[in-house]
Amino acid sequence: MTTEQVPSRVEQVPTVEPEAPAVQRVEDAGVHATDRGYRQPAVDVAALRRLLDGRYHEVRDLVRANLAEHAQVLLDEEQLSTADFRERVKDVVLKMASTGQTGMGFPQEYGGGGDIGASVAAFETLAYGDLSVLVKVGVQFGLFGGAILQLGTKTHHDAYLADLVSGRTMGCFAMTESGHGSNVQALGTVATYDVEAQEFVITTPDDASRKDYIGNAAAHAELAVVFAQLEVAGERHGVHAFVVPVREGGHVRDGVRIEDCGPKMGLNGVDNGRIWFDGVRVPRTALLNQFAEVTPEGRYLSPIDNPNKRFFTMLGTLVQGRVCVGGAGINAAKVALTIATRYADRRRQFEASSSEEEQVLLDYGMHQRRLLPLLARTYALHFAQEVVAGQLHDVFSGPGPTEPGSDEHARRTLESRAAATKALGTWHATRTIQECREACGGAGYLSENRFAALKADTDVFTTFEGDNHVLLQLVAKGLLTDYAGEFEDMDQLGMARFVAGLAVETVVERTAVHKLVQSVRDLLPGGDTWDQEAGLLDPNYQLAMLRFREEHMIGGVARRLKRGVDQGLDAGAVFSRVQDHVIAAARAHAERLVLEAFVARTAALPDGDLKVALNLLCDLHALSTIESDRAWFMEHGRLSSARSKAISREINDLCRKVRPLAVDLVDAFAVPDEMLRSRELLTWGD
Amino acid sequence: MTTEQVPSRVEQVPTVEPEAPAVQRVEDAGVHATDRGYRQPAVDVAALRRLLDGRYHEVRDLVRANLAEHAQVLLDEEQLSTADFRERVKDVVLKMASTGQTGMGFPQEYGGGGDIGASVAAFETLAYGDLSVLVKVGVQFGLFGGAILQLGTKTHHDAYLADLVSGRTMGCFAMTESGHGSNVQALGTVATYDVEAQEFVITTPDDASRKDYIGNAAAHAELAVVFAQLEVAGERHGVHAFVVPVREGGHVRDGVRIEDCGPKMGLNGVDNGRIWFDGVRVPRTALLNQFAEVTPEGRYLSPIDNPNKRFFTMLGTLVQGRVCVGGAGINAAKVALTIATRYADRRRQFEASSSEEEQVLLDYGMHQRRLLPLLARTYALHFAQEVVAGQLHDVFSGPGPTEPGSDEHARRTLESRAAATKALGTWHATRTIQECREACGGAGYLSENRFAALKADTDVFTTFEGDNHVLLQLVAKGLLTDYAGEFEDMDQLGMARFVAGLAVETVVERTAVHKLVQSVRDLLPGGDTWDQEAGLLDPNYQLAMLRFREEHMIGGVARRLKRGVDQGLDAGAVFSRVQDHVIAAARAHAERLVLEAFVARTAALPDGDLKVALNLLCDLHALSTIESDRAWFMEHGRLSSARSKAISREINDLCRKVRPLAVDLVDAFAVPDEMLRSRELLTWGD
Repeated sequence: MTTEQVPSRVEQVPTVEPEAPAVQRVEDAGVHATDRGYRQPAVDVAALRRLLDGRYHEVRDLVRANLAEHAQVLLDEEQLSTADFRERVKDVVLKMASTGQTGMGFPQEYGGGGDIGASVAAFETLAYGDLSVLVKVGVQFGLFGGAILQLGTKTHHDAYLADLVSGRTMGCFAMTESGHGSNVQALGTVATYDVEAQEFVITTPDDASRKDYIGNAAAHAELAVVFAQLEVAGERHGVHAFVVPVREGGHVRDGVRIEDCGPKMGLNGVDNGRIWFDGVRVPRTALLNQFAEVTPEGRYLSPIDNPNKRFFTMLGTLVQGRVCVGGAGINAAKVALTIATRYADRRRQFEASSSEEEQVLLDYGMHQRRLLPLLARTYALHFAQEVVAGQLHDVFSGPGPTEPGSDEHARRTLESRAAATKALGTWHATRTIQECREACGGAGYLSENRFAALKADTDVFTTFEGDNHVLLQLVAKGLLTDYAGEFEDMDQLGMARFVAGLAVETVVERTAVHKLVQSVRDLLPGGDTWDQEAGLLDPNYQLAMLRFREEHMIGGVARRLKRGVDQGLDAGAVFSRVQDHVIAAARAHAERLVLEAFVARTAALPDGDLKVALNLLCDLHALSTIESDRAWFMEHGRLSSARSKAISREINDLCRKVRPLAVDLVDAFAVPDEMLRSRELLTWGD
Repeated sequence: MTTEQVPSRVEQVPTVEPEAPAVQRVEDAGVHATDRGYRQPAVDVAALRRLLDGRYHEVRDLVRANLAEHAQVLLDEEQLSTADFRERVKDVVLKMASTGQTGMGFPQEYGGGGDIGASVAAFETLAYGDLSVLVKVGVQFGLFGGAILQLGTKTHHDAYLADLVSGRTMGCFAMTESGHGSNVQALGTVATYDVEAQEFVITTPDDASRKDYIGNAAAHAELAVVFAQLEVAGERHGVHAFVVPVREGGHVRDGVRIEDCGPKMGLNGVDNGRIWFDGVRVPRTALLNQFAEVTPEGRYLSPIDNPNKRFFTMLGTLVQGRVCVGGAGINAAKVALTIATRYADRRRQFEASSSEEEQVLLDYGMHQRRLLPLLARTYALHFAQEVVAGQLHDVFSGPGPTEPGSDEHARRTLESRAAATKALGTWHATRTIQECREACGGAGYLSENRFAALKADTDVFTTFEGDNHVLLQLVAKGLLTDYAGEFEDMDQLGMARFVAGLAVETVVERTAVHKLVQSVRDLLPGGDTWDQEAGLLDPNYQLAMLRFREEHMIGGVARRLKRGVDQGLDAGAVFSRVQDHVIAAARAHAERLVLEAFVARTAALPDGDLKVALNLLCDLHALSTIESDRAWFMEHGRLSSARSKAISREINDLCRKVRPLAVDLVDAFAVPDEMLRSRELLTWGD
């Protein structure tokens, strides 16, 4: 049913005969499926922390220690001028770099740690602290360093990697332009090959093509990886990347103009800037030539013939940034939840019962409803992130995309999954931090209590490394390509526009055959009314619901697209009309992946209180996910009114069961105390 | 059916015989109810602006001119230190005060304008600009000035009003304490009457009782209106307000300790502080004695015997703050929508059809879905705000609560409506500004483009002047008191806890008898399946749906409460379990009021393009409101799957019809260009 790496209790299920009663399908039925004999589990915080930290727990602890050591930067963010804070952030980044924390993804021969997974773990954990530091690290080591590593060849590695890993050379990643954000293929900057001089000439033709929002550009970068349209002998070959010096000895180089982007909502420790190039010359070797080469005499060569495929292969090697940002969003949400949950467990307001004492906030049903499903979803996303980070590690520890043995399919799967997880993780951060701020009332508004910076700094996570809506379109496009057969009578342009042309060349492997499923039964045989009778806490039921929704939505989008084209509508108009369905289908796909990851992870645990506790959270997440889209399930005959109401009641019940565990569950995130600040909130009532 | 002041086409309907076909019930069926012969209306921006500005258009234009004159303050917010920016904001506030803008609600004999409605209009419009200025104005003239005016008597008016209206005396409103936010009745500060000295002694007994988040306290206030538990001869009389000098000649007075709250998420031009009182003595006349008096010899007198009623009557006179904050939230949303809509009408990204040119963002269906229902809702809330501001004006232009002819009922209606509108208006601001930021991508993250300040500054609107959830509980409690009869067999304590004890003594007048309605037909007779057949664009249908939901939810809450108590559950536990239903019922009530206001306002317009355009928006708002809770309607048998899907399709269709009008619709808000900044966004492509 799934291709997940983690074992899933669900995967063992299909061998059960259809006529077997549904309840027997659950293997750990005990506490999970019934209230009878329910015993409140106790959470071993240390064990849960170890579980969450996983394989890279030592790396995470190193980052925690580094964060605590530089905790002052959280105060500096409030107190220093922007110019001084930028220097301070650079300083902290360099100090962290010296511990090896930021270079874990680079080859050991250049001073790196040679472990991709470790570098993701380090980055994610860094999100517990000041996020300007995080983003500066992302720019220097992820974007700039990643481009040199992935798009360059040994010459470039030898020339730059050791110095950029140590932070001796600072660089920036000059892709986005003012007029070309999501649509990277339409970039306006041009790199023309001058065969006489054997140089590329980099030019910004107009203001819409100036590089914009470029981190490290306004103050610190000496080098830029510049993405530009390559032109050789009058012929365009699409977007390629070039190493371009933009500063020498701290001064902006001739022909380069840099402007500060000015104050931003947050992340003001990062020096974002705009860059114009006026005929800037770089040697022929400045082309990062992993996927294409220009010979001295001006011949263009590439191992990938198709320009589209070449472009998306190149972009695909930069997927780590998306994985990292998604993980950072999830971890930022953990910081907010830690503060809001601990506070809600102490703060009293209004007498609710006959006792004289006011009632603790977290004993209010509404407060539980506001915080606990978000806590459950944070766990769900944590485990989904663990899966995508694992896939990233595996893919990037293997052969490159043009090398023998490259697993093209695994790369496409990873790209789609990274896009989906990034979108859900960063939206979750925005939503969770907001709810936590409100749940802390006026105190939540004070900078001391962290929400100010969390909100302001994470806000752009939904936009950078790919706008979330555009990313979901990319995911949807991958899902839709499986329908290509149904579009046979569609003309080439229409087909290209709708299915191939939306975004990136990506294909998602799906073991189930794409067809319009008529009922949950098609996905998981169990009798005509199986889904109406299955236990709400049966993970098979929960997963079947999400799978049904996904399949149905993908089929629906495909039929709508085809119908629009058949009716002779303008391609743009058809896409515009179906766009909300496209996004919804991708979201449904993403939600299914997240739940699968959570179910599989808990199923793999040994029996015990920890498993019971995580199953409570998993149920809460699954049912909250269904509840939030219960209208769709009712509209499509998969949920009766009565059952829909029962789900809401069950969620309330689960909230009451999770409530006594809530503080332990956030403590297991192990956000360093120094990162929480919130001195008064967290000692309230002492 | 309703008690609204504006005429409603719906109110004219019930005379129609039940057997008449539903479609005939719509009086302006033409364009509104059918697509046939639909002609796209043209919007006369000036006329629409005049309609929105309403009765106080001159006041609004005065504020617009003042905002434009002091536009530099938007830049100062980014560039000055906190200390300097606070002085700058104070300076702008005083300059605005000198134009009469900020004193419109005070009696003319003290230099005011003598027009409550004008003061609300001025405040709302001020939300187009820097929001520290807005909040500083709110603190000085609304909270501090309002308390002196409403709670004080002529002695206090003569002593303070002229100076505070001019801004010569700055003051603060010291109600909230660190440990007592929403639960004002539990404040810890004590004012003990010393009969010997004929003075009150103000004391802060513990840190939980320090005054907190008090605007104007950290730097500028000379006076504070302090809310404290009045104790006379060892007897407590509940919370009363006292005028207490906290600074003299700019120095903090002996016995008073003030601490700066430090940096905040936003509104850093307002000097919020904490105050402790250590036996601070004030004369007997410092008691604001509109509702209670202590005689020199220490007798406590009040025209209102019941202490609860006295407290809530006192608080009720301060309702203007809530009305103002709700209106400010709605207007802040207008700023965000103006920028995002104009940008979306210019910015191109991705080629969507066969033309070479990239497609404009607002031509994407998803982008329409993201922005246009929010635009429609902004209009709806604007008209709802117009109603509550009108009620405020009428109530406060009449006799005071203890004077002959006081309309107790109108006061309670106003308080409930103010709470409901404040909650919806401020949540709408948070949501809309966030969506608009994301819709502007990375550009939305730059301070120049306004979203940074809008987000940071408005964030606390959902908390101050009453936490939105607590306010909705207050609304629900008013709705529930009509059910009191059903609680006859409930013991006194239980009854008090649940129904009277939730929040404020408030009663909502409802002409319809509260009973558990079984179908929409009970609300608006029209045949058994009327609601399944009525046109989706029939406002009678839309309103009936929202009324049914409200009635059903209120009845449901009452039954649940009673059942819990009947089962012998602990009062706190029962309330906790039903709390989400309580909030949902209040929200449903609030949504019904908003839609009624919009429907009534458009119905009253003369036929023409403006009416057609506003009807499109009204339909879009109504159907979006139903769609967002369509699961509930399906669960309660009021919406079939097919009809639910039809509503979503209709919304998409309405979005396409509104799209060509979108820029005109935001231009009619007439946010001064200087307040938009966003130079590049708004001239994109020029």
